[in-house]
Amino acid sequence: MTTRTSPDAGAQTPCAAPLQPHHDGSELYVSTQTPQLGETVQLRLRVPQSYPNLDSVWVRSNPDHEPAWDRAQPAGTADGWRWWEAEITVHNLRHGYRWLLVHDDAASPGQAGTVRWLNQAGLQTGEVRDAHDFALLAHPAPPEWLCDAVMYQIFPDRFAPSEQAAQREAPKWAQPAEWTDPVNPVMPARVQQFYGGDLDGIRQRLDHLESLGVSLVYLTPFFPAASNHRYDASSFRSVDPLLGGDEALIRLVQAAHERGMKVIGDLTTNHSGDQHEWFQRALAEPDSPERSFYYFTDDGDYESWLGTSTLPKFDWSSPALRREFIDGPDSVVAHWLKPPFNLDGWRIDVANMTGRYGEVDLNEEVRRTLRRTMEQVKPDSILLAEITNDATGDLTGDAWHGAMTYPAFTRPLWSWLSAPHGRPYTTAEGTQEVTPWFFGQPLGGIPSGSAEQFQAAVERFNAAVPWRIRQGNMQPLDTHDTARFAHNAAEGSVPVAVGLQMTLPGVPTLFAGDEFGLTGADGELSRTPIPWHSADDTHVRERMGLYRELIALRAEHPALRRGGMRWLGADEQSLAFLRETVQQSLLVFASGPAHGDRRSITVPRAAAAGWEQARPLWGQADMDLGETAVRLSASAPSLTVWQLPGVSR
Amino acid sequence: MTTRTSPDAGAQTPCAAPLQPHHDGSELYVSTQTPQLGETVQLRLRVPQSYPNLDSVWVRSNPDHEPAWDRAQPAGTADGWRWWEAEITVHNLRHGYRWLLVHDDAASPGQAGTVRWLNQAGLQTGEVRDAHDFALLAHPAPPEWLCDAVMYQIFPDRFAPSEQAAQREAPKWAQPAEWTDPVNPVMPARVQQFYGGDLDGIRQRLDHLESLGVSLVYLTPFFPAASNHRYDASSFRSVDPLLGGDEALIRLVQAAHERGMKVIGDLTTNHSGDQHEWFQRALAEPDSPERSFYYFTDDGDYESWLGTSTLPKFDWSSPALRREFIDGPDSVVAHWLKPPFNLDGWRIDVANMTGRYGEVDLNEEVRRTLRRTMEQVKPDSILLAEITNDATGDLTGDAWHGAMTYPAFTRPLWSWLSAPHGRPYTTAEGTQEVTPWFFGQPLGGIPSGSAEQFQAAVERFNAAVPWRIRQGNMQPLDTHDTARFAHNAAEGSVPVAVGLQMTLPGVPTLFAGDEFGLTGADGELSRTPIPWHSADDTHVRERMGLYRELIALRAEHPALRRGGMRWLGADEQSLAFLRETVQQSLLVFASGPAHGDRRSITVPRAAAAGWEQARPLWGQADMDLGETAVRLSASAPSLTVWQLPGVSR
Repeated sequence: MTTRTSPDAGAQTPCAAPLQPHHDGSELYVSTQTPQLGETVQLRLRVPQSYPNLDSVWVRSNPDHEPAWDRAQPAGTADGWRWWEAEITVHNLRHGYRWLLVHDDAASPGQAGTVRWLNQAGLQTGEVRDAHDFALLAHPAPPEWLCDAVMYQIFPDRFAPSEQAAQREAPKWAQPAEWTDPVNPVMPARVQQFYGGDLDGIRQRLDHLESLGVSLVYLTPFFPAASNHRYDASSFRSVDPLLGGDEALIRLVQAAHERGMKVIGDLTTNHSGDQHEWFQRALAEPDSPERSFYYFTDDGDYESWLGTSTLPKFDWSSPALRREFIDGPDSVVAHWLKPPFNLDGWRIDVANMTGRYGEVDLNEEVRRTLRRTMEQVKPDSILLAEITNDATGDLTGDAWHGAMTYPAFTRPLWSWLSAPHGRPYTTAEGTQEVTPWFFGQPLGGIPSGSAEQFQAAVERFNAAVPWRIRQGNMQPLDTHDTARFAHNAAEGSVPVAVGLQMTLPGVPTLFAGDEFGLTGADGELSRTPIPWHSADDTHVRERMGLYRELIALRAEHPALRRGGMRWLGADEQSLAFLRETVQQSLLVFASGPAHGDRRSITVPRAAAAGWEQARPLWGQADMDLGETAVRLSASAPSLTVWQLPGVSR
Repeated sequence: MTTRTSPDAGAQTPCAAPLQPHHDGSELYVSTQTPQLGETVQLRLRVPQSYPNLDSVWVRSNPDHEPAWDRAQPAGTADGWRWWEAEITVHNLRHGYRWLLVHDDAASPGQAGTVRWLNQAGLQTGEVRDAHDFALLAHPAPPEWLCDAVMYQIFPDRFAPSEQAAQREAPKWAQPAEWTDPVNPVMPARVQQFYGGDLDGIRQRLDHLESLGVSLVYLTPFFPAASNHRYDASSFRSVDPLLGGDEALIRLVQAAHERGMKVIGDLTTNHSGDQHEWFQRALAEPDSPERSFYYFTDDGDYESWLGTSTLPKFDWSSPALRREFIDGPDSVVAHWLKPPFNLDGWRIDVANMTGRYGEVDLNEEVRRTLRRTMEQVKPDSILLAEITNDATGDLTGDAWHGAMTYPAFTRPLWSWLSAPHGRPYTTAEGTQEVTPWFFGQPLGGIPSGSAEQFQAAVERFNAAVPWRIRQGNMQPLDTHDTARFAHNAAEGSVPVAVGLQMTLPGVPTLFAGDEFGLTGADGELSRTPIPWHSADDTHVRERMGLYRELIALRAEHPALRRGGMRWLGADEQSLAFLRETVQQSLLVFASGPAHGDRRSITVPRAAAAGWEQARPLWGQADMDLGETAVRLSASAPSLTVWQLPGVSR
């Protein structure tokens, strides 16, 4: 990495983005992250001093869906920016607002000047939609620790067995496997292959998590079930004895808490297993309250998840189901948050379909009830929703603190950073396959995309998400439901992907084994038992080092967790952005795998105040400080982070 | 107007839009406009035959918010287009879907080809948001007649007095005015100036409406009140005696029905007047049920519309209010739809704020209840919502058949077609003003915009609105709440605006007096009494002729009412689009007021199959049929419509 000063860095046309008016929901621009109804909030806008013809600036709110206008006042200049400040009073639980810039560029008197809107979709010509407003949320705020978290997802059967695990007999449904056996993706082995990891095994490996810098453990289901994934729970009121039972969970959570780590569980609110005690009672006793929990037809048939009869779907119009499952301190949801278990929250499986069935849509009621219960029994807990596709419609701030969602980060990242070719693997059907798996979409592989398209996707989906919720969204490279990112990654791209995971707003989420460099062609083949024996192999040490360093970078720099987010540019194979606070700013430059020319992003010198003080923190790219422009460049896939002075205002 | 064939029409670079894959919600592409839950619907997509590398086509639905895929099959070629057909089954009341185009352009085997999405926002690179899906609606459908309607808005005090009107004494609050007195916009005259138009006066002028081609009369409130606008009703259970009382309304509706015209009323569900019988009882009797209708505070104060204490806001959490006002056959809403009144529907005032107050949002419940009642007592009625700004969030198809909304048509049209300068007028504050009024926004006048920006705004807002609702949206040039379009119109632009109003999807809506060429600088000054005495003036006859011809054009050509909507192009001062059915297509070209070069839109010859048979129906622009391209052009503001053969498929 070099930082040079040269006169010709401006030869490339600079990207316009860095010299545009900017605002986002971060503390740099908004006086509080936890506004209350009736509270007055200060909002700040920065406009380049070179921005022409600005006459007046307004904030347009929309209280009760009727526009209201607050005029902004100039609030000083610094480093080439003019700051504007306005006050608005929070009237709704989601209080949307956007900026109006009125220009004095009328050609003649009596004519209006041009106008521009600034909303979460950027600077706009022409009128814009309310859906893209910035938004203050007066709903109860998520715990402070969520946006500081680095999450680590564990699939308990595959993580680590304790000594007791070896002594347990495998259940009847299971096909016992040795820890080093390959994963068999073919049904029924796919769900029956049983490696025997348990909760005490996890507890005994907390050193590993701590050494990585992980602060939040997400366990896929720990309930008794008849499969290795346990999403077909037979009860939500006990821990599977094969995992060590309730006591093992109590020990695990306590041990984690002693290290300052949080632990969340995984609940399916869309359906249960057909062996679930509720469903069995509903079948056996048609007059039981449990009968109302499900969608039974007159002929005794019932609705189930995508037609899979082993997964009967819940009918959330049932008050009895709500009481038992989600509503109040005696519900399942509350049970595990209270002592002696003390879980720190939930990830909700298939949240997207929950409460939705044909003409019925009770999703909003269900999620709000769920969160209300959590606020009652443990406000310091988090609630995340699995919404694998477009989550924006449900991320209104009323319940979910964030989503496990793929189109806003994971899928466009794969499109940019995957190698073009697949590698042979055996599918669940037992056939040899080379077409890379892409989230079950009929695309014939991973569609290729550019850095610019990645940036566009991040912005397109986040344009409709309040800043506070964007910060709570899970940011995985892969999960137990996907191929491993590393399986398809283009050469040299893993550090780029991990770097973006750690530097963009959102909760970095590792699927256990990512740090071992595991591969896996789809959601089954990626559930490899953790190869603890390989921890000292060179390539594993290197990969773990990568994670440790980048997680530490995030931990040490609040700007990566709470800073504003400002793009400097993106093109075919490169992108750059800033995470900014008053105390310090971090500059991130990433370049992708395409061969050919040197990859670079060039910004005008005027947008690079203080960059001569840039201190490289991580990575190998070059910064070339020219007289009129600054060029960030690299000759290979790369991610580089520089520390810059904080933002003056 | 000329239609020429020349070899050089292609000299201008053709716009790419006409040769892109296309689908919309019209009958050309969707087998039913009234799908039911569980029904299988055929969807068709057209793709230019020249479109490269298309491998497979899919429809992606999202039942219960979980993606589902239906593969499309080729369904023949015609006129340069390849058609694809898919079947989907309607699962939700709003069943969203979009098209996926997979290309076989992979650089090497094992690599995925590129993919494109087609949704209501157009052809897309990268993943798209569910909010922009096409949408089938399984909610009860609006009456067939809505999308055939031409609406005419009447402000009763200013339309026409019957002979009885002159004999009525003006009420105490009123400042009686002679019919030819100028409107006084200064408070309190603004709301007290009383011209004395009445319902029998309207009835006696139905000849005029029929001669224009109007099929739907929208009356602003006819309830007793203490203002000329009557939005401060003192009762919702009777017609103002000053308007002729209940009997006059019965006579008016009956007379309209005899001519095949419909009549709708205007209800305010956000607030009542403080003289309303409900509010008076609530004040007088704190224990009355009416007390629960409003937001009273402990100290006896109450919430009101934007702080205007004469307009107390309704509290829709009150079951008593729901029963009395909107729920069931005895409610106010039902009362006027039933005999002997037989109204054909409602326009709901301030629908955007209804049921919304701070942390409470009951809007969805209120609008659904309202519509359910209408379905009970008169399914053949329409329900339109005043949502002056972005209406898309509430236009889900569950209740409102359309909206009175300005950003999706009216405001961008003003921006394109207004003259740059204001003309002096007297404001409500009595001051002399030249800054054109622009819907109360602090913009210093009407921001100027291009034809392209108009097109972009139309598409931006309609991208989030189901086709059936788009067809029900009101499409006014102005209303009783705005300046008159003609007041600020650039020279020669009125026919362009009226033409677009009549040819774009949506319900053309005249504010009474538009056809007399009335002007008016804002929402008060535009409420001029209709100058019946000037009906034979040359400029009035000309303006009326314009309306008659364009309304007739719409009436005679189903494609303008039910046809698909396909843009051919838009630039600074010109735009062109097609309204298409199997039976016939209509080509519309519009050009704006800017001086300078000839305005034109050029399309490739391949996108103009059958255009040699174009038959001019209205307007003066030229069509120049070149060997490789077709050029539509005009040297002045213009709107031209050609008839083309129907779409082969």
